[in-house]
Amino acid sequence: MDLGVDRSYKVIIGSGILLQIGGLTKNLMGQPKIMLISNPLVFSLYGARVVDSLQGAGLAVSIALMPDGEEYKSLEQLRLMLDEAVTAGLERSSVIMALGGGVVGDLAGFTASIYQRGIPCIQIPTTLLAQVDSSVGGKTAVNHPRGKNLIGTFHQPALVLIDTDTLNTLAEEEFQAGLGEVVKYGIIYDYELFQLLEDQAEGLRNREAKVVQEVVLRCVQIKSQIVSRDEKESGLRMILNLGHTFGHSIEKLGHYKEVKHGQAVAIGTLMASILARNLGYLKAGEVERIAALFKRLGISLQLPAYSAQLIYEGMLNDKKVKDKSLRVIVPKGIGGYDIIINPAADILLQAIKELAAYQY
Amino acid sequence: MDLGVDRSYKVIIGSGILLQIGGLTKNLMGQPKIMLISNPLVFSLYGARVVDSLQGAGLAVSIALMPDGEEYKSLEQLRLMLDEAVTAGLERSSVIMALGGGVVGDLAGFTASIYQRGIPCIQIPTTLLAQVDSSVGGKTAVNHPRGKNLIGTFHQPALVLIDTDTLNTLAEEEFQAGLGEVVKYGIIYDYELFQLLEDQAEGLRNREAKVVQEVVLRCVQIKSQIVSRDEKESGLRMILNLGHTFGHSIEKLGHYKEVKHGQAVAIGTLMASILARNLGYLKAGEVERIAALFKRLGISLQLPAYSAQLIYEGMLNDKKVKDKSLRVIVPKGIGGYDIIINPAADILLQAIKELAAYQY
Repeated sequence: MDLGVDRSYKVIIGSGILLQIGGLTKNLMGQPKIMLISNPLVFSLYGARVVDSLQGAGLAVSIALMPDGEEYKSLEQLRLMLDEAVTAGLERSSVIMALGGGVVGDLAGFTASIYQRGIPCIQIPTTLLAQVDSSVGGKTAVNHPRGKNLIGTFHQPALVLIDTDTLNTLAEEEFQAGLGEVVKYGIIYDYELFQLLEDQAEGLRNREAKVVQEVVLRCVQIKSQIVSRDEKESGLRMILNLGHTFGHSIEKLGHYKEVKHGQAVAIGTLMASILARNLGYLKAGEVERIAALFKRLGISLQLPAYSAQLIYEGMLNDKKVKDKSLRVIVPKGIGGYDIIINPAADILLQAIKELAAYQY
Repeated sequence: MDLGVDRSYKVIIGSGILLQIGGLTKNLMGQPKIMLISNPLVFSLYGARVVDSLQGAGLAVSIALMPDGEEYKSLEQLRLMLDEAVTAGLERSSVIMALGGGVVGDLAGFTASIYQRGIPCIQIPTTLLAQVDSSVGGKTAVNHPRGKNLIGTFHQPALVLIDTDTLNTLAEEEFQAGLGEVVKYGIIYDYELFQLLEDQAEGLRNREAKVVQEVVLRCVQIKSQIVSRDEKESGLRMILNLGHTFGHSIEKLGHYKEVKHGQAVAIGTLMASILARNLGYLKAGEVERIAALFKRLGISLQLPAYSAQLIYEGMLNDKKVKDKSLRVIVPKGIGGYDIIINPAADILLQAIKELAAYQY
């Protein structure tokens, strides 16, 4: 992945990567002091492996654990991690490692980006969502009481190490959330990936190692391509929000409890696909094909009886409504995209209402 | 000033600039929502002028005041400013303005750099130190209880507006601190500036408008040149630390009270010059010339009776001792520089002790 001279970085994907972390880090970074940020659950599963590998390579490592949960992606937790970094005596040449899912990755990346005005961060994502999405691309953030990801930085990781073995212990709900993003890449950017997902849906759902690795690799390549062409999210990167504008509104209506994130994004993706079909961007049968893939992957499209009007109003209040315009990403054929700026209320409401036809 | 396509920015210097802020902002940024960060003293002096100019140009502006003082360059104050930004409803296209000295500039710049992962910041420095140094270059920071400027970012301002009229109300001590940095630029980088300072020392000391503007302009040009060649402080930018490694140790020995910052930097600069002379980098008489300039500018080189050994040990503990090496910047001729890596203890101690010969 190449973002220019100073910000190019590597992504290494495979089985058993955790055991090689020490050597890989040493090859790339020399002899840095390391602080590993993780949460108690992930650390109990994989911490020993990572620490042993680092110490085996002669690297000094300190551990900073944070509680699991979106509510800990906070300024207060950021302060605690900065205190840990100071206590560990990290220098400009030191490295912060993030072992965990998106919460750990976002907070560790943010910590690294502002400690001594930026030190290297190595991402070791352990959830499918983090592996195919948040660990690649350099977006870091914490939440503010008034909005998600409102405070953060762009800070490209020095290295992303993806050990697909870690997916074997992942809760089904979290795996599903990742699958929703995987399908998104296929719909918006890569028809071949979409076909691969159709061919291998059951293998992927059952987490067969070979299928999972192929899919993760392809998604990381797509994310890298998009990010390298638009690091600061001024244009192209926006297409990664396919389904998210609808999805965020749905999640909010359910107070982030009734509908899971992955499910909300999948529902939002289908709504965007219906919108695209109604605008002539998708052919007859393509919406059905997308819905069928979600179903085979085990992703529910069941939506509580929220009013279409409330979903629509929630979209207008989204933080991404920049300069007062609503930008809705839609597929243009499977594997392509377009951006609809300020779509008329009636065509948006129509797409939201038609979702009912695809619920199962 | 050119740091590449996305981070080039303008510096505008002159008398009466505050009255033109509205028009200048509108020309450059369009119609952004603005949050002005300042402190009560500076705001009482210049706030009305700035707000009137902005409102006169049809721009909406909210005010966020913070207390004055280095102790408020803190994570807690950062959080308060972020809350203000959220309350003001700032968007990605909004602008944060910093009206004040280095504390306001560093905190406002930091706030802007992490709000929604970075929004534009306009610096309006009102102290000589901030005008010639901190407002240009994009370094932002807050302090940590365990170290100065330990947490921060690099975030280039969208615009720097320097109204030299604001220097007329500046306390003598703060003006002196700025003069110390001005002399530093001459010694390390620009023999012509050094000569200008010698020619105009009394005019500068008396804050004559024409002299002040010429000097500030020249210093900003130098700082810009250095920063554009080394934005992230990996090499060249380090030369701006002339005198600071000695100076920080001296300030710390006096618990940041006994010796003022500007004075400590001036004393450190002279120690570095003595070291340079002893190494053959400065000719006979050049140390005397530098000391004489400090004296004419009214900068005291009086140092309490700290032991040379303690000053030396403090230098070894400086946060900039990266990877366990001590890098001391020294002039090489007036107008040039060299970097001495890990100078022997005896030659450093010798330079520290010889300062006594130049105290007045």
